[in-house]
Amino acid sequence: MTFMLRCRPATTPAMIEIFGDEATLRLALRFQAELARAKAAAGVLPHAVAARIAMACDTAEIDAAQLAEEAAHAGTLAIPLVARLRAALAGDPAATEAVHQGATSQDLSDTVLMCQAQCAVEIVVDDLGRIVKALTLLAERHAQTPAVGRTLMQDALLIPFGLRIAQWLYGIERALRRLEHEAATALVVQVGGPVGTRGGLAGKGGEVSAHMAKALGLGVAVAPWHAMRDGTAGLATALGIAIGALGKMARDVALLAQNGIGELREPYSAGRGGSSAMADKRNPTGAQIGLSAAVRAPGLVSAILSGMPQEAERGIGGWQAEAAILAELFMLAGGATAALAAISGELEVDEVAIANNVTRSGLGNDLGEGVAIIAAILADAREGR
Amino acid sequence: MTFMLRCRPATTPAMIEIFGDEATLRLALRFQAELARAKAAAGVLPHAVAARIAMACDTAEIDAAQLAEEAAHAGTLAIPLVARLRAALAGDPAATEAVHQGATSQDLSDTVLMCQAQCAVEIVVDDLGRIVKALTLLAERHAQTPAVGRTLMQDALLIPFGLRIAQWLYGIERALRRLEHEAATALVVQVGGPVGTRGGLAGKGGEVSAHMAKALGLGVAVAPWHAMRDGTAGLATALGIAIGALGKMARDVALLAQNGIGELREPYSAGRGGSSAMADKRNPTGAQIGLSAAVRAPGLVSAILSGMPQEAERGIGGWQAEAAILAELFMLAGGATAALAAISGELEVDEVAIANNVTRSGLGNDLGEGVAIIAAILADAREGR
Amino acid sequence: MTFMLRCRPATTPAMIEIFGDEATLRLALRFQAELARAKAAAGVLPHAVAARIAMACDTAEIDAAQLAEEAAHAGTLAIPLVARLRAALAGDPAATEAVHQGATSQDLSDTVLMCQAQCAVEIVVDDLGRIVKALTLLAERHAQTPAVGRTLMQDALLIPFGLRIAQWLYGIERALRRLEHEAATALVVQVGGPVGTRGGLAGKGGEVSAHMAKALGLGVAVAPWHAMRDGTAGLATALGIAIGALGKMARDVALLAQNGIGELREPYSAGRGGSSAMADKRNPTGAQIGLSAAVRAPGLVSAILSGMPQEAERGIGGWQAEAAILAELFMLAGGATAALAAISGELEVDEVAIANNVTRSGLGNDLGEGVAIIAAILADAREGR
Amino acid sequence: MTFMLRCRPATTPAMIEIFGDEATLRLALRFQAELARAKAAAGVLPHAVAARIAMACDTAEIDAAQLAEEAAHAGTLAIPLVARLRAALAGDPAATEAVHQGATSQDLSDTVLMCQAQCAVEIVVDDLGRIVKALTLLAERHAQTPAVGRTLMQDALLIPFGLRIAQWLYGIERALRRLEHEAATALVVQVGGPVGTRGGLAGKGGEVSAHMAKALGLGVAVAPWHAMRDGTAGLATALGIAIGALGKMARDVALLAQNGIGELREPYSAGRGGSSAMADKRNPTGAQIGLSAAVRAPGLVSAILSGMPQEAERGIGGWQAEAAILAELFMLAGGATAALAAISGELEVDEVAIANNVTRSGLGNDLGEGVAIIAAILADAREGR
Repeated sequence: MTFMLRCRPATTPAMIEIFGDEATLRLALRFQAELARAKAAAGVLPHAVAARIAMACDTAEIDAAQLAEEAAHAGTLAIPLVARLRAALAGDPAATEAVHQGATSQDLSDTVLMCQAQCAVEIVVDDLGRIVKALTLLAERHAQTPAVGRTLMQDALLIPFGLRIAQWLYGIERALRRLEHEAATALVVQVGGPVGTRGGLAGKGGEVSAHMAKALGLGVAVAPWHAMRDGTAGLATALGIAIGALGKMARDVALLAQNGIGELREPYSAGRGGSSAMADKRNPTGAQIGLSAAVRAPGLVSAILSGMPQEAERGIGGWQAEAAILAELFMLAGGATAALAAISGELEVDEVAIANNVTRSGLGNDLGEGVAIIAAILADAREGR
Repeated sequence: MTFMLRCRPATTPAMIEIFGDEATLRLALRFQAELARAKAAAGVLPHAVAARIAMACDTAEIDAAQLAEEAAHAGTLAIPLVARLRAALAGDPAATEAVHQGATSQDLSDTVLMCQAQCAVEIVVDDLGRIVKALTLLAERHAQTPAVGRTLMQDALLIPFGLRIAQWLYGIERALRRLEHEAATALVVQVGGPVGTRGGLAGKGGEVSAHMAKALGLGVAVAPWHAMRDGTAGLATALGIAIGALGKMARDVALLAQNGIGELREPYSAGRGGSSAMADKRNPTGAQIGLSAAVRAPGLVSAILSGMPQEAERGIGGWQAEAAILAELFMLAGGATAALAAISGELEVDEVAIANNVTRSGLGNDLGEGVAIIAAILADAREGR
Repeated sequence: MTFMLRCRPATTPAMIEIFGDEATLRLALRFQAELARAKAAAGVLPHAVAARIAMACDTAEIDAAQLAEEAAHAGTLAIPLVARLRAALAGDPAATEAVHQGATSQDLSDTVLMCQAQCAVEIVVDDLGRIVKALTLLAERHAQTPAVGRTLMQDALLIPFGLRIAQWLYGIERALRRLEHEAATALVVQVGGPVGTRGGLAGKGGEVSAHMAKALGLGVAVAPWHAMRDGTAGLATALGIAIGALGKMARDVALLAQNGIGELREPYSAGRGGSSAMADKRNPTGAQIGLSAAVRAPGLVSAILSGMPQEAERGIGGWQAEAAILAELFMLAGGATAALAAISGELEVDEVAIANNVTRSGLGNDLGEGVAIIAAILADAREGR
Repeated sequence: MTFMLRCRPATTPAMIEIFGDEATLRLALRFQAELARAKAAAGVLPHAVAARIAMACDTAEIDAAQLAEEAAHAGTLAIPLVARLRAALAGDPAATEAVHQGATSQDLSDTVLMCQAQCAVEIVVDDLGRIVKALTLLAERHAQTPAVGRTLMQDALLIPFGLRIAQWLYGIERALRRLEHEAATALVVQVGGPVGTRGGLAGKGGEVSAHMAKALGLGVAVAPWHAMRDGTAGLATALGIAIGALGKMARDVALLAQNGIGELREPYSAGRGGSSAMADKRNPTGAQIGLSAAVRAPGLVSAILSGMPQEAERGIGGWQAEAAILAELFMLAGGATAALAAISGELEVDEVAIANNVTRSGLGNDLGEGVAIIAAILADAREGR
């Protein structure tokens, strides 16, 4: 589905890799290996048995496409995966029995998802940081440039050109902080067993969970969270808000790049932003990707929230829907941040057009406290990092 | 992304194929071939040139993954695709110049999407029809069976067991009719050129469009519809309502299958509905897939609607978001209809449990006009087909 | 909540009246009166008793605010309403017993809502028709005026100025047809009794339902539809699409009214579109109302769809949420159509600015088949009526 | 619109009051009074003039309904309100000129909204706290009671009955913390003037803003936030997640109250939870209100996110939509928290039914580490407060 993902709309190869089949399979096997090791560390499985299970996970040769087919039939990835591992361990009854024991399908799928989310958060945070940095320079450079301020899409009063840019960076900076905050809460391991009691782990489930969290680089969960999804919902909303803040910047870039306004252009990149029919056109492709993501993200966030009232210990429908939605939000966020990071350092500001628009507007030359407000935003953003 | 698509949540191999890279690429080439032929038929391109273009499309060997990468950079699939065709036709200036001429990227992407939608609609309609047929039999079989009717999830008064099933089929039947109705409106060709004036086609754009529609099995568009997306929105909402109607059935199946109620079970299928941790459990997997789709679809529909206020002749962000969303709605609809079609003919009704629940409820034996209402629904549904 | 409804964002007094307390109460009483009369017509209640109930409904003096309070406590409007009617009929045991008998709370609330929806549809359809008519004239007037066509918010190629307007009207016209189509399906009476079997009506429930439909000017329902909400969902999506089509027009009006473009202005209306701080500013207030509605409607549609998987005979949460959402969609649609109807006949087209923009763009003078496409749209829209 | 708000679905009188006309008008006048006083405190307006303006605000007699009508026409509340104040101050040119000077309509509407939000947050936080406290007791009381755990709505393994309750409280507790966190960020004053430069305040805009924040009990904003709405979006998503967490509890209450399961009942309250047709029925009305809110909230959150990409200094459509949506989210949250707070302390647990269901299930007696997990949740929740 490369076209679908790369072009309609764009995400990055890195995001596709993180949420792709190979990575999912690799992480699923790693879950089983770390589960075995954690049980050994907690004293509920002989180390030698754990080592044999981990070895089977490391050396498993599994056809992802066929496994996916079986998983689709079974209704969960864990069932055919565990069957393969057991087959690989045939003749080793202790290991065969111990594979997956104490865990449930959702333990595997949630933990895998959180590992993927962690990689994805890192990338998004990095790119948001790059955007903030680039916009800081741009806001400083144009902190004193009089420009037309617009309200309800009509000329209104003057602003320093850098103020609009400072507003972008400020929204994006706060979105970045929120994403880090929510990630710190949400990115925890899931080890709860079939009904969230950590049964089948000889009373050492808490320890097993803690060991796995450490091994996988995730946080420790106070309790299993199979049916209480406020953590993933928090992550989803933080992504939604980040995409919205990027969409604000994208909207303004598209508005400023219009013929007749012309205050800003996206940088030229060979082969990009062209038109299949009009060779000389220079489309604001970065803005398009940002706006497209901003159209898609809100509905995905609402789907995550709609799924929250899950049934009893592990629900039907809600959490099964969640993984794909969260992956999609990350892919959109990754695509939008990458696209805007790519242009934010190279935005071409046309000072002549800005000045001409000021003249045309007849709006005088009062910038109010715009310059001081830019400074306040930049200071706060610096402090926030 | 097979896991993602097949398991989180489920769709069918047929839907993945329809919206996959290979089909997209094949249809994109077919668009170019039919465009050339249509121009020839309309007398604006020599037949021989058209034939050479069509031949180049037929014989093109294109690496889908690399093309996707270039398309992602360019911001549109048409740009690198046309470049390949032109390269393949190098030395044939008439053909090189004529490729894609008169069309715009969005003509290609919208037309390809509508071709994919048409195949997908056919499958969904077929499966909905299968469900309606199966539920008709089931409703008839249990048209006189007294059962507990429930409101606000509490026992209320008796109904004939078949009435609930007739309600499912009636909602699904009407959703099917709406989908066919909206598809008839929406599934039209897009040939408008860069700004929707059908320029560059020597005044024969209407004819070219009509020829292409016929060749591709799509309807003729009264006018280009690059920025007025009520048609695709209508299709999306019809899918959303169909998924909602299936979700109603799925919700009831899950409720009826509960221990302590036990009036209905999904059929047993080896390797399906099991639990990775509890081997004897029989999960209502069909219901899960239906409910999961019902969680996801509403947000996708809202994204389509959010994208409607598109800018000028061809907008920025809105339509670019639409293709992926519509594809996803079809995949969800395909997955949900297939899952419920698979169980609807084999639902295991437990008449003893139904009777026991009636007894426990102490609700007497008055079925009101339930039997007549079932008959009225079945008659109307028959007529509707 | 007048500020809330009138200003944030705007709806019309007519819509507020339709969905207001007084109308709701009046219709609820009318439901009870018509139910009694219908039962008499069907021979299951003496005409004299029905007349006394109807009289009690006509003469009831009920404090809407206090009733609302009791209804909020009871969880349904029917309970305190019926209690008042019974109190008013005290001493008339036949009438007291017969009030509401055979109906359930949801029969009342759904039927009232459909009566309100019918009035609201009429207004929205009228206003949409007015917009279509006004835009037809405008499209004809500017059918040959060369203007800049824009894609991805960049100058692209020329179009006849009337083409963009024709596209608006075409989308709005089709949205109007869809709304009429969905209304014809959805606007039916609800008479099903507690579990949708029309119990308690001596086997004459079908007749009672038909009589009530006729009396209330609603369609006859094939069957009760307490838990199968595809009809109301169809109505909601049709409103959502209409608002989206209006939003497309609004977006373009706002873009064209920008300083530096200046091709179109909203008409001047004393006291409207001003700014509290900048007295000379002329804000595109009609466009603002349209765009604001287009921001709000998609989420409301998704909520309606999310509520579709309702439980058993009458669900918990889903249908209770629906009435407020549907009312809100109608209020938004009413506000947006009224706002755009008010400006569509008086839009000020600046031909000089249009010509200047053409000159600045250097895009030549080829309008392609734009003029013919306008004609085709207008012809199709005429035929559609 | 009392019926609409109180019954379809329920909110509380307190929430209606907070967001009602009278409170809105009172806060709008207070904004003007505090603006005048803050300008005086910052030395840009004589104290005497400020006092006369404040007096005019205090003594203004304004017909809310008529003002709303004019505001709807003007497109903003500020325009007619300021006109009234100026009329009241006629003959006092210094005061007349100073009224509203330095502010813009959106300063007023955003600040009023944040004042309302602050009152509303307080109520929601209190009620969430009451729920957490009540559920803590309930979880402790049933911490050792073996009960059937259910997954995919099928009996699975045993849990301590208190574990499910502890999960509810834990999700609600975390939602409460998130709401407080987001409120601390979002609840800031808006004083930016027409284009967010704090022009017209003689360079003392920062000071004026700080004085107003203090007087109104709001936080100080680093910068005006007219077009960067991550703060309000954060508040909206926190409400959405809280409603989702309540919805989870509501779903489980409804499931447990089913006949055939019967482990839990909502407390009896005279006149509540009845049925208009079935006098003995006891509907889970609290759960219904919670579930109904959970159906509505996600779409409202998505609308807030959709509105984020606002245009330039103050946009068109996005922020105008926001106030009503946020008010509605608060009303839903207020209704759901109040409904669940009312039942959470009085939930009737049926230990006999729980035990019978355990016996019927044949699931043995292993509670895993369920008891310890309850203790861990309660400890963490205590610490979190």
